[in-house]
Amino acid sequence: MELLTDLYELTMAAVYFQEGMYEPATFSLFIRDYPPNRAYFISAGLEEVLAYLESFRFTRDDLDYLDSTGLFSTDFLHYLHSLRFTGQVRAIPEGRLFFKDEPILEVTAPIIQAQIIESFVINTINLQVLLATKASRCVHAAKGRGLIDFSLRRTQGPDAGLRVARSGYLAGMNGTSNVLAGKMYGIPVSGTMAHSFVTSFPDELEAFRAFARAFPQSTVLLIDTYDTLSGAEKAVRIAREMEEQDLQLRGVRLDSGDMLQLSRQVRDLFNREGLDYVRIFASGGFDEYKIQEMVRQGGMIDAFGVGTKVGVSADAPYTDIAYKLVKYAGHPVLKLSSGKKTLVDEKQVFRTEDNGRPVKDTIALSWEDLDGEPLLKTVMESGKRILQPDSLEDIRERCQQELSRLDERFKALESPDAYPVELSSELVKLQAEVVHKVREKELGES
Amino acid sequence: MELLTDLYELTMAAVYFQEGMYEPATFSLFIRDYPPNRAYFISAGLEEVLAYLESFRFTRDDLDYLDSTGLFSTDFLHYLHSLRFTGQVRAIPEGRLFFKDEPILEVTAPIIQAQIIESFVINTINLQVLLATKASRCVHAAKGRGLIDFSLRRTQGPDAGLRVARSGYLAGMNGTSNVLAGKMYGIPVSGTMAHSFVTSFPDELEAFRAFARAFPQSTVLLIDTYDTLSGAEKAVRIAREMEEQDLQLRGVRLDSGDMLQLSRQVRDLFNREGLDYVRIFASGGFDEYKIQEMVRQGGMIDAFGVGTKVGVSADAPYTDIAYKLVKYAGHPVLKLSSGKKTLVDEKQVFRTEDNGRPVKDTIALSWEDLDGEPLLKTVMESGKRILQPDSLEDIRERCQQELSRLDERFKALESPDAYPVELSSELVKLQAEVVHKVREKELGES
Repeated sequence: MELLTDLYELTMAAVYFQEGMYEPATFSLFIRDYPPNRAYFISAGLEEVLAYLESFRFTRDDLDYLDSTGLFSTDFLHYLHSLRFTGQVRAIPEGRLFFKDEPILEVTAPIIQAQIIESFVINTINLQVLLATKASRCVHAAKGRGLIDFSLRRTQGPDAGLRVARSGYLAGMNGTSNVLAGKMYGIPVSGTMAHSFVTSFPDELEAFRAFARAFPQSTVLLIDTYDTLSGAEKAVRIAREMEEQDLQLRGVRLDSGDMLQLSRQVRDLFNREGLDYVRIFASGGFDEYKIQEMVRQGGMIDAFGVGTKVGVSADAPYTDIAYKLVKYAGHPVLKLSSGKKTLVDEKQVFRTEDNGRPVKDTIALSWEDLDGEPLLKTVMESGKRILQPDSLEDIRERCQQELSRLDERFKALESPDAYPVELSSELVKLQAEVVHKVREKELGES
Repeated sequence: MELLTDLYELTMAAVYFQEGMYEPATFSLFIRDYPPNRAYFISAGLEEVLAYLESFRFTRDDLDYLDSTGLFSTDFLHYLHSLRFTGQVRAIPEGRLFFKDEPILEVTAPIIQAQIIESFVINTINLQVLLATKASRCVHAAKGRGLIDFSLRRTQGPDAGLRVARSGYLAGMNGTSNVLAGKMYGIPVSGTMAHSFVTSFPDELEAFRAFARAFPQSTVLLIDTYDTLSGAEKAVRIAREMEEQDLQLRGVRLDSGDMLQLSRQVRDLFNREGLDYVRIFASGGFDEYKIQEMVRQGGMIDAFGVGTKVGVSADAPYTDIAYKLVKYAGHPVLKLSSGKKTLVDEKQVFRTEDNGRPVKDTIALSWEDLDGEPLLKTVMESGKRILQPDSLEDIRERCQQELSRLDERFKALESPDAYPVELSSELVKLQAEVVHKVREKELGES
């Protein structure tokens, strides 16, 4: 995966090599602004970044390809062959809340190392933060109802399918349909039948019976293949047949039509028939907005399968994330490009609480010691992890706590309030000094 | 990757196994509707699907995981262990145009095989069609100007980063910054420097000089780190220094600010200085809409780097793609779920032309022989490819031809006309018969 990088990382590295530039550089990863309707982010993806850094190395095959481009000297390719990541990483742990402009992660390493990892680091954190944040909004909207990730078929590639499952679970969802994610991350997997299953049988009732025979402990019948209410009546019949064998039908799934009305009609039917225990699941175009509406209107749905719109974060399919050089060879640096502010130097974020609730963050220089909890932890030194990886369950628990403590007004699904993020006076001062120096030097201003 | 599937594919397979259902099933892959502002799709992803099917097998490790879920019988796991894909695939070749409701791909195989591959097939084709279609719109908007994929850092995962590069090149883009994609697919790679490069040097001019020393044949200077016009003046100085060594500065890149105005100012400056040969590249938030606007207004940009918005197809991050059972054991089948029409049976698509331009497609039953070109080719029989894979260059060439022959009104970036797609009278008749039979049988209608 080391070639999974932008060519310019390698051309820049070649120049640093040629010029003998091996001083330490600090790069800061942050998100410039919120996507629509967001006022917080959830940290996710750090574990994968650290695994990548620990195993970083170019293969002979990679170097042969680079050689074939004709761009690079043999000396530089030799140098790449022995290149390892030996730097430091400070980061906000997974599952924690963070806000715009705050450094999620800072890398300090000889500049070639810190530069060359850029594309992978941005890609990894961007996707997982995006998906964890989206999933957390669904969890908020569902108000305790179950949420299962059904998005694999429409995610933007297999990697995304796996990351949705992990990020979703991290943010409070209950499981996934993605079997490989179940295996890789230990996430509960679920799923029962598709419409093709029902249509492959001579009739719907036969399809339901066959399923109940095979999975008597976990039968969830998809009842909308032909007509939801007619399917629900067949489900009642199956439930009766199962009761005769001391079994219980676990549930039914709605997947089309007016699900608010259908869910009530199906619930009524089941209750009339003494089948209060049969759960109603729903899938089909659900995201946080549709879930919130369904819950508000009193839809009788016990759990939602969320798919495409959550799996691609459809209303906000990317973040404005950036990885910027903030210090080189001991000097704070920045760019001035219009509309793209970068905060100089190594930083820390301090979170202040009131009555156990976060009320303000302050972005400061890393050496400052302000009130509040410092969020960035040193997680890697000299290219080695210095902390045990957190378990996904621990991260999930942490995330649930963080979210429960965040004021509702920052979690509103539409037009949330902005959480207060300030800059320390030391940072403001240094920022102004560096801007002044750069303008003087590059633009001839005084 | 065989576990990269939804759990229900496996639970359904277990029931088919239990019930002894091994008859051939045909599944049809199609897109129900266009995303906003689209009126065509480009076929892409078939090569990856065929490679997956040819190598399909569960590993011992996969089966151990499935066993650990407690859901499956030992007999069924043994069966999975020996499961290979032995079916037929008919498909519209990569790089061709297709339209909504048309089968892109039809799989005919024993139902367990045809079912179990669903998640992978949908995921693969959905993403690549989405990205190829998006990229083709940028190519259309750029009217012959260069287009390079810069999206890797913001794609939804590494896989997506690779698929963007391939799908984009397939659809007419000129190259990618993604080095691994260059290696894997033989796509031209490009890229020079980031802002971090400029800020790591004592001053901008030194940074530019160092780059020109290292890459005299391909120096493209990023000139907006501090101020674009000031950067352009330094680029003039570099160009002069290069001319003294009989070298030419290749170009500059703009990445922020009012790029319409800046591109004109920079072009004017270069032309006044006799540097007509220095090209102007631009990046930063470009997609087909922004490119079209820039071209219309006369921006002096020779090539665009397109990133995030193209890499995630931001205005349409998914398609409404479905893989539906249309025939089982010789009988055409369908579901009736409201708002989700499926066309029964094995099908073919016939394209009619007028003066070398496509004017109408007809979706027919596979045995029909209508006027026009049949689009679906048999590409796999008994689990083996029966055609050599097309080279990416050939697919790209085909795609360019297809697009050039499509009327402008179907390619408009906003509110394009709908391309005519009809159903054959035989298909209409069979569809009505099957709907009637199903309603009679399942809903008691007569």
